[in-house]
Amino acid sequence: MDELYDIAIVGSGPAGISAAVNAKIRNKKIILFGNKELSSKLTLAPKIDNYLGYYNITGKELADKFLEHLNTMDIVISKERINNIYAMGSYFSLMVNDKEYKASTVILATGVLFGKPFKGEVELLGRGVGYCATCDAPLYKGKPVAIIGYNKEAEEEANYVSELASIVYYIPTYKGEYELRNNIEIIKDKPLEIIGDSQVQKLLLANGEIQVDGIFILRDNVAPEQLVPGLEVDENHIKVDREMKTNIEGCYAAGDVVGKPYQYMKAMGEGQVAALNAVRYLDNKAMNK
Amino acid sequence: MDELYDIAIVGSGPAGISAAVNAKIRNKKIILFGNKELSSKLTLAPKIDNYLGYYNITGKELADKFLEHLNTMDIVISKERINNIYAMGSYFSLMVNDKEYKASTVILATGVLFGKPFKGEVELLGRGVGYCATCDAPLYKGKPVAIIGYNKEAEEEANYVSELASIVYYIPTYKGEYELRNNIEIIKDKPLEIIGDSQVQKLLLANGEIQVDGIFILRDNVAPEQLVPGLEVDENHIKVDREMKTNIEGCYAAGDVVGKPYQYMKAMGEGQVAALNAVRYLDNKAMNK
Ligand SMILES: Cc1cc2nc3c(=O)[nH]c(=O)nc-3n(C[C@H](O)[C@H](O)[C@H](O)COP(=O)(O)OP(=O)(O)OC[C@H]3O[C@@H](n4cnc5c(N)ncnc54)[C@H](O)[C@@H]3O)c2cc1C
Ligand SMILES: Cc1cc2nc3c(=O)[nH]c(=O)nc-3n(C[C@H](O)[C@H](O)[C@H](O)COP(=O)(O)OP(=O)(O)OC[C@H]3O[C@@H](n4cnc5c(N)ncnc54)[C@H](O)[C@@H]3O)c2cc1C
Repeated sequence: MDELYDIAIVGSGPAGISAAVNAKIRNKKIILFGNKELSSKLTLAPKIDNYLGYYNITGKELADKFLEHLNTMDIVISKERINNIYAMGSYFSLMVNDKEYKASTVILATGVLFGKPFKGEVELLGRGVGYCATCDAPLYKGKPVAIIGYNKEAEEEANYVSELASIVYYIPTYKGEYELRNNIEIIKDKPLEIIGDSQVQKLLLANGEIQVDGIFILRDNVAPEQLVPGLEVDENHIKVDREMKTNIEGCYAAGDVVGKPYQYMKAMGEGQVAALNAVRYLDNKAMNK
Repeated sequence: MDELYDIAIVGSGPAGISAAVNAKIRNKKIILFGNKELSSKLTLAPKIDNYLGYYNITGKELADKFLEHLNTMDIVISKERINNIYAMGSYFSLMVNDKEYKASTVILATGVLFGKPFKGEVELLGRGVGYCATCDAPLYKGKPVAIIGYNKEAEEEANYVSELASIVYYIPTYKGEYELRNNIEIIKDKPLEIIGDSQVQKLLLANGEIQVDGIFILRDNVAPEQLVPGLEVDENHIKVDREMKTNIEGCYAAGDVVGKPYQYMKAMGEGQVAALNAVRYLDNKAMNK
């Protein structure tokens, strides 16, 4: 785990894979975090007309072309979800639960959140509401916790929390087989509102409510300022300049996460610019050593 | 000629065609100026690895895919070279010699200059050196003029100037058949330096020199601030914000012409952003009428 990557790319959507391809062409040691379908925003698109060179293609077909491109270039996707990224001065520390990856630069290509926050979510953030169960689990030792899970990765976090909490309620927003410990109670219901005064008290569901001290909402994407403490944002989008630099030295961002319009080619062009500027930054640093 | 286009796109390289595709999808009335091979920077590329979806493709092959995409969408390229663009307040006037096109918004996607200016070129600009022969021809009535032509379109300008000038020397930088009037003297030599004190006096060539009062340099691309008077530039690149807006309302820019890195996907992402913001600008204007 003590390997130091040149560039860690977080997100395997159009922005992330474009960054990976360009960084790899420049001979940088990269690691690309994401999932094997690349991005659900790509695979779910019914018909794409504005990806030059492929008129009237489905998102699934385009994703397959992209995967082939990555394979040919020996770019592999690390199927891990980054919970937190810390700027450590000379490198970045990227956390996957308790596992650490190290990289000299980071490119954030995590896309944007789907939908709106739950009622009460923003108000009670940090006061019972959290986005990283494994990070904050110790706070809820011996207490009841609800986890709203948007994907299978959330199940791992639920299992971990269940070792500490008095009880874990797992509310999945997706269908499928759940690989959860026996002591976790699965609730198939629709979360509506988080209630509490200065602290979370309960989670209101379409068909009932549960008393809890903590609620973790494990979406596909977390807010960027949650992911990277100290990151400057501007109305939900990461602030970048025309070089795709964020306010943190060595940290770049690209794609939907930096702003509208939400589009493939825009995301890919930005991923490319972010990668090439990260490469330049690394090369300058090496020269001045 | 009195038709008013919603969006005029100047340049048929990656940036321009991406702008055209996205504007057309949004139902805007567009006109795309350029050439039928799209861009020599595309067709001359020997091997492209960073266009996602097509690994290890030649520029020619990729250009063919793009042309097919444009054809399918009924996007035609107007094979004309824009000499000047004037912001007229409620519309833009785009000049092709003495022909005028009108558009509510403009997207500049003209790429960057190849190579450096000639010695003396910058110093004598406007004092005998010019980039638009048809615009300035009247200044050289009865006087000797040299035209350094980079492409066939330059021949037309030379023919026009030869009606006024005492003599026209045509120095082509390309090979092929020249369609020039009999009274034009073709010189197959390499231009080296423009000499003159306060005014152009002669053009130095590798194997000789010619006495002239005016020298027109008709490159594939002209400097953007020459093309659009009043346009703000920043070290040879057009200044744009993250929406690809220039300092002139309704005027956008994308691709190599706005800055490095010089790359296809960056150019195409920017072309898309420019088009979508031009569309938004037009829609807002229509709403507030
Ligand atoms: C149904 C639909 C149709 C669309 N059609 C078009 C179209 O026709 N044309 C067009 O141009 N655009 C279209 N779009 C928009 C386009 O999908 C987005 O603009 C594009 O996917 C943005 O790319 P991105 O790389 O920025 O983000 P995303 O595609 O959202 O990718 C982000 C990736 O990062 C991963 N990720 C996030 N956080 C983490 C983390 N912490 N650790 C590891 N991985 C993480 C996510 O799981 C995801 O895989 C469409 C979108 C939708 C939803
Ligand atoms: C040999 C070579 C290989 C390359 N390989 C790669 C690669 O592998 N990957 C990569 O990402 N990039 C590569 N590039 C860079 C890439 O070609 C450019 O970044 C890209 O073409 C820029 O696109 P653009 O649309 O901004 O400008 P251009 O492609 O330069 O297109 C501008 C167009 O506008 C036209 N035009 C200009 N002025 C006017 C006017 N007044 N009126 C009408 N039309 C006008 C021009 O004739 C031209 O057709 C390569 C470049 C070269 C030269």
